[in-house]
Amino acid sequence: MLSQQELIQLFKETRSDSEKICSFLETEDYVVQPVENVSPPKWHLGHTTWFFEEFVLKKYVDTHKLYDENTAYVFNSYYESVGEKVIRTNRGNLSRPTVAWIYKFRKYVTEQMLKFLNNNELDKEILGVIEIGCHHEKQHQELLYADIKYILGNNPLLPKYNDEFKENIIQDFQQEWINIPEGVNEIGHKTEGFSYDNEKGVHKKYIENFNISNKLITNGEFIEFIEDDGYKDVLLWHAEGWDWINENEISSPAYWHTIENEWHQYTLNGLEKLNPKAPATHISYYEAFAFAQWKGMRLPTEEEWETAQKHFDWGSRWEWTESAYSPYPNYKKPEGALGEYNGKFMVNQKVLRGGSVATSRDHTRPTYRNFFHPQLRWQFTGFRLVK
Amino acid sequence: MLSQQELIQLFKETRSDSEKICSFLETEDYVVQPVENVSPPKWHLGHTTWFFEEFVLKKYVDTHKLYDENTAYVFNSYYESVGEKVIRTNRGNLSRPTVAWIYKFRKYVTEQMLKFLNNNELDKEILGVIEIGCHHEKQHQELLYADIKYILGNNPLLPKYNDEFKENIIQDFQQEWINIPEGVNEIGHKTEGFSYDNEKGVHKKYIENFNISNKLITNGEFIEFIEDDGYKDVLLWHAEGWDWINENEISSPAYWHTIENEWHQYTLNGLEKLNPKAPATHISYYEAFAFAQWKGMRLPTEEEWETAQKHFDWGSRWEWTESAYSPYPNYKKPEGALGEYNGKFMVNQKVLRGGSVATSRDHTRPTYRNFFHPQLRWQFTGFRLVK
Amino acid sequence: MLSQQELIQLFKETRSDSEKICSFLETEDYVVQPVENVSPPKWHLGHTTWFFEEFVLKKYVDTHKLYDENTAYVFNSYYESVGEKVIRTNRGNLSRPTVAWIYKFRKYVTEQMLKFLNNNELDKEILGVIEIGCHHEKQHQELLYADIKYILGNNPLLPKYNDEFKENIIQDFQQEWINIPEGVNEIGHKTEGFSYDNEKGVHKKYIENFNISNKLITNGEFIEFIEDDGYKDVLLWHAEGWDWINENEISSPAYWHTIENEWHQYTLNGLEKLNPKAPATHISYYEAFAFAQWKGMRLPTEEEWETAQKHFDWGSRWEWTESAYSPYPNYKKPEGALGEYNGKFMVNQKVLRGGSVATSRDHTRPTYRNFFHPQLRWQFTGFRLVK
Amino acid sequence: MLSQQELIQLFKETRSDSEKICSFLETEDYVVQPVENVSPPKWHLGHTTWFFEEFVLKKYVDTHKLYDENTAYVFNSYYESVGEKVIRTNRGNLSRPTVAWIYKFRKYVTEQMLKFLNNNELDKEILGVIEIGCHHEKQHQELLYADIKYILGNNPLLPKYNDEFKENIIQDFQQEWINIPEGVNEIGHKTEGFSYDNEKGVHKKYIENFNISNKLITNGEFIEFIEDDGYKDVLLWHAEGWDWINENEISSPAYWHTIENEWHQYTLNGLEKLNPKAPATHISYYEAFAFAQWKGMRLPTEEEWETAQKHFDWGSRWEWTESAYSPYPNYKKPEGALGEYNGKFMVNQKVLRGGSVATSRDHTRPTYRNFFHPQLRWQFTGFRLVK
Repeated sequence: MLSQQELIQLFKETRSDSEKICSFLETEDYVVQPVENVSPPKWHLGHTTWFFEEFVLKKYVDTHKLYDENTAYVFNSYYESVGEKVIRTNRGNLSRPTVAWIYKFRKYVTEQMLKFLNNNELDKEILGVIEIGCHHEKQHQELLYADIKYILGNNPLLPKYNDEFKENIIQDFQQEWINIPEGVNEIGHKTEGFSYDNEKGVHKKYIENFNISNKLITNGEFIEFIEDDGYKDVLLWHAEGWDWINENEISSPAYWHTIENEWHQYTLNGLEKLNPKAPATHISYYEAFAFAQWKGMRLPTEEEWETAQKHFDWGSRWEWTESAYSPYPNYKKPEGALGEYNGKFMVNQKVLRGGSVATSRDHTRPTYRNFFHPQLRWQFTGFRLVK
Repeated sequence: MLSQQELIQLFKETRSDSEKICSFLETEDYVVQPVENVSPPKWHLGHTTWFFEEFVLKKYVDTHKLYDENTAYVFNSYYESVGEKVIRTNRGNLSRPTVAWIYKFRKYVTEQMLKFLNNNELDKEILGVIEIGCHHEKQHQELLYADIKYILGNNPLLPKYNDEFKENIIQDFQQEWINIPEGVNEIGHKTEGFSYDNEKGVHKKYIENFNISNKLITNGEFIEFIEDDGYKDVLLWHAEGWDWINENEISSPAYWHTIENEWHQYTLNGLEKLNPKAPATHISYYEAFAFAQWKGMRLPTEEEWETAQKHFDWGSRWEWTESAYSPYPNYKKPEGALGEYNGKFMVNQKVLRGGSVATSRDHTRPTYRNFFHPQLRWQFTGFRLVK
Repeated sequence: MLSQQELIQLFKETRSDSEKICSFLETEDYVVQPVENVSPPKWHLGHTTWFFEEFVLKKYVDTHKLYDENTAYVFNSYYESVGEKVIRTNRGNLSRPTVAWIYKFRKYVTEQMLKFLNNNELDKEILGVIEIGCHHEKQHQELLYADIKYILGNNPLLPKYNDEFKENIIQDFQQEWINIPEGVNEIGHKTEGFSYDNEKGVHKKYIENFNISNKLITNGEFIEFIEDDGYKDVLLWHAEGWDWINENEISSPAYWHTIENEWHQYTLNGLEKLNPKAPATHISYYEAFAFAQWKGMRLPTEEEWETAQKHFDWGSRWEWTESAYSPYPNYKKPEGALGEYNGKFMVNQKVLRGGSVATSRDHTRPTYRNFFHPQLRWQFTGFRLVK
Repeated sequence: MLSQQELIQLFKETRSDSEKICSFLETEDYVVQPVENVSPPKWHLGHTTWFFEEFVLKKYVDTHKLYDENTAYVFNSYYESVGEKVIRTNRGNLSRPTVAWIYKFRKYVTEQMLKFLNNNELDKEILGVIEIGCHHEKQHQELLYADIKYILGNNPLLPKYNDEFKENIIQDFQQEWINIPEGVNEIGHKTEGFSYDNEKGVHKKYIENFNISNKLITNGEFIEFIEDDGYKDVLLWHAEGWDWINENEISSPAYWHTIENEWHQYTLNGLEKLNPKAPATHISYYEAFAFAQWKGMRLPTEEEWETAQKHFDWGSRWEWTESAYSPYPNYKKPEGALGEYNGKFMVNQKVLRGGSVATSRDHTRPTYRNFFHPQLRWQFTGFRLVK
């Protein structure tokens, strides 16, 4: 557990990082919601602030004056047990509160939080909630990158975000198969550091012998799949994946464009020629699975990944696993509103492991369980194979 | 027909009026599209500008340099014969081009237009297109008011637009029935002034004897309908109207709210107590029809309205008529892209006559035919009865 | 008005005709509802029977014992003021009551009706309702033909209905333009014979000079439209028509098939080579309008058609007019449930005039106003032009 | 593996059983498809027959004459690699081929199969396909019961299927918690008998100590959940489950009706008072999960169930498990079209174990993995708890 001083540091950095991410946006970019799972950047900024006011200041600071009683509820997300919420698909219809208002709201709450943190010796419970609030905001930082990429990358003008963000980290080493012998392994979060409820509860897992690649699948390899008509062979796909690619006319990863017969990729730096050596990204679980079928291999389970991860580099792409997102054997949902954090999503989603170029500093670890629906590709997702 | 000097004046005023309307907005308000038939204000500003560049400068000014070849197509609306268009439901997803960009685009095109108008003696055809362009922009000014009201009035914070816009013009005179005896009447645009293709083609219409009210139905009268369970009596409604109120859970005009058992109305000046004497507005054709059924009366046809209009005041509400929007007997669709202006909407819509508090100066006349689908209520619509 | 004896005759024939139409069906054909506007044939048989029990026997015969209190409500259609109704889109999900049950229900009600008619001298009101009941059933006979054609003609096996039904009546006479000079004409039902409420209320209509074709557009002419890319020229279409053909991938009239590059047509006699001389049919209003635009002509209004009809043959195709379905100036909705018959459909539909090969004997007349939504084509619809 | 004689016996019984199940239906009941996941009974009869003609007779009997080349493709289901298929949602629109035709088709194929089986000594591969065909038909027998119940139980007349089918098997023994100590267990099909690909590949699983109930949750217990407002407490539900109950207005298991404040249940014997002692059924995974949350317990994983199953009675309800349907570690998809049988459904579904009153004889076993989407309830589903 962090000391109060360390937490103050984490809190300051986290608050500041969110604003840095948004500093490259035009006001208009903060407002739109082109699809349901993308939220307007201004909503992320407001929601992460609402979290601290709702779960810390309102609860633990008697003298706290709410910044604006009538407005903040707009930033509730899925905490259905805490009053009204604005329906997710409506977020992009709200021009007010304005971006300027939200920055003032942020400033106020950040200041009140720092006053509270600096002037009181806080107990474990409160420190725990604040730590969760920081990690919660880090999750939204990652969402900010993905949502901003979606907003700009689906605008017909394809504007760039900035020149600095580096999406493609080349794996300049030999492909090898790492063998993990069969046996009972311990799975789950063991250290003292921060973790979410969903990765807690260390438990034993019997894992059979397997071989896992030290490299992520690259754009070049994915082009081979496309050129071998992988998107047209029904036998490679889940039934629901097949319907999904056909209904949505999908025939390549997201953000890929062909211009004069050459593959290009929209990145946060703008449209670029596709680099065949870069790890493939913006791929759905359905596509990762079909690729694996085509290779005669498969995706790792999350326990295989966790067991093997110390033997390979990871962190540039969230890696799809074959595992459905389910509770660990000893999973206990936290009490109260924070209990809605993870447990209620444990159906119809797939676990991803690792982390990506968009993951905030210190916001991933070997036991971290990310999860998305199998068709989603707006995150920096990729995969490695097992045989 | 206007002289070139008069047209220059009209053009300048029109361009400036659009910007005045938007001067009360926050940048964020320009961007959103909460429902399909509402467009983002920035789109209106860009689209009316694109019109002049596409149909005047590009066509008649050889030396014209397009402001931005890659961007302008975003502002095409329904002119399907002129290149690609951005699908209407997607407009609210586009954060770029920015509001600032659009104001620069406006400035450039306005200047180029004025240079062209000031330095050349233009022929009738060109003057005609420019005049249409001005009236087209005036139509969008009216849409701007309605769309802005929708954007702000459906935001949970109910922000006001400004303090000046006057929605409710009280009819402080006695209700009377004006009798129009039967006979053959001439319908259609006769004067030299501007008119659209759809009101042209003067023709004879035999109209039977009828009596029309000199007053619009008021909020107070509409409350009586509500209190007499008008929204619950299936026999008053069209089958499609009944389905519409039930699917959308409609039980009062748009923008009405009950607060502590008292009717309030969101206006462009913010939320106010409902004034029972004000003419009812934001009413669909279905509701106007049901109200008339409930009274044992009916709505006028558009020809009845046109014939009787000189006997009463009009102009504060677009008035629903019983007439479907159809071509006049001698209707001729203009050649080319401008032929898409009116003719292609002549099905499934109802004619409205008059004009409203949001109608731009000089943008209505006794023969003007406005038209909307029967369920739409975001405009300042109302109605008067015939018996 | 019919005498009681004539009415008995009409009633007997009508009841027997419905059953004759269905005598060519397999039990399974009675059950399905492939699209919303098609009803299962067994529903038509039950509904027309329910009408007599509900509006005659239940109301006027004190001693009448309902055939089955719990079942009959399944056959209510749109009479929302008479109790519960089974939602239209659900009719095809109901395997019970069975076809055999319905025939027994029919037999019982027919017998009870005849007993009532034979043993009492009935007053005008009752005779009037029974006459409406007969005409109502004749309307359903026409629907039966259209619905049966839809059910069989959209089955991948394309089974035929029978060998006798004659769809195509060749117009073996010269095309001519009939001129009707301008003037005031009387419109509406004038004779003593039966008519619906919607054609009542004779009124004057000023009609300008026009020329109308003595022939319906043929399949051969429609092929020319197709071959001239009429389905691909946006300028010929209403905006909603254009969306409709694109969303539904429509590029020919309904029931047309190309087999080895030759046009075929599914008819109630099975699949046949398309006869270029036959009047085109199963055409939507949108297609009729686009064809007229392509020819530089237009469709007649319903008043033009009614005025001109004595000069040409009609009755093999319901003919689209340009007129929206609206109340006549003096229209009065009948009191009570029968008031729902026509008036509540007077929005968003187009008037068709004439009658078709599927129209029951004596079920059409020069003033008859049929009406459908502009996209519907499952009826035997066609059109003639005006210039 | 069965001997050829045993297989002939199995084949005969299976074919005859399907027809026995349908013998209680009216012709009309064979035709309808009220929701997508319910197929018309006639389709099941045809499809199971098509399977034998397509995968056995056509492939292995050179002299085989297809019963009807043009018709059989209607009965392809999800075998996308074998030619065209009729879209699932359209099955209920097809009145042809008729029920009588299908019975003739069945008779022909059954006879040809028996001739083939009786007159040849068949190799393992062929015997294997025929065995799969029999088990495939048994699966459809179970679907027939569920689909018939849906068809009749959603008809407003609530007709009964027959008087014999016994849905409710009372658990007249004490509730007890069976303890299973932690350790490594073998999971998967081990015997010589028939099994599907998805249960093959015996593998080790480390299971922690747990206690499982020897009884299924009863109707009486489920009423307690309802009365304690279990359907109204958001914290008990998955986010997707909560949306599902709200959108579908679900507040009790399927087929439950309140009549004069008393719970009734539609069963295949018609409407009956709800028996509080009967095991609850027609429950979705979402509801089972929420119930378990309410109890502070959880559902078993499929491996826990398989390990513990020898200690309790099962077979009257398919039992939801917490396990998502995924491939076993050594899963190998069979080659060719039969490879589509199971593997392609391994996403977004939950595993059910056990079997139900509708399960065909010999069609379940301790390792059998059934699977459905979490919201489906038309099967005889129930659940037991673990703590």
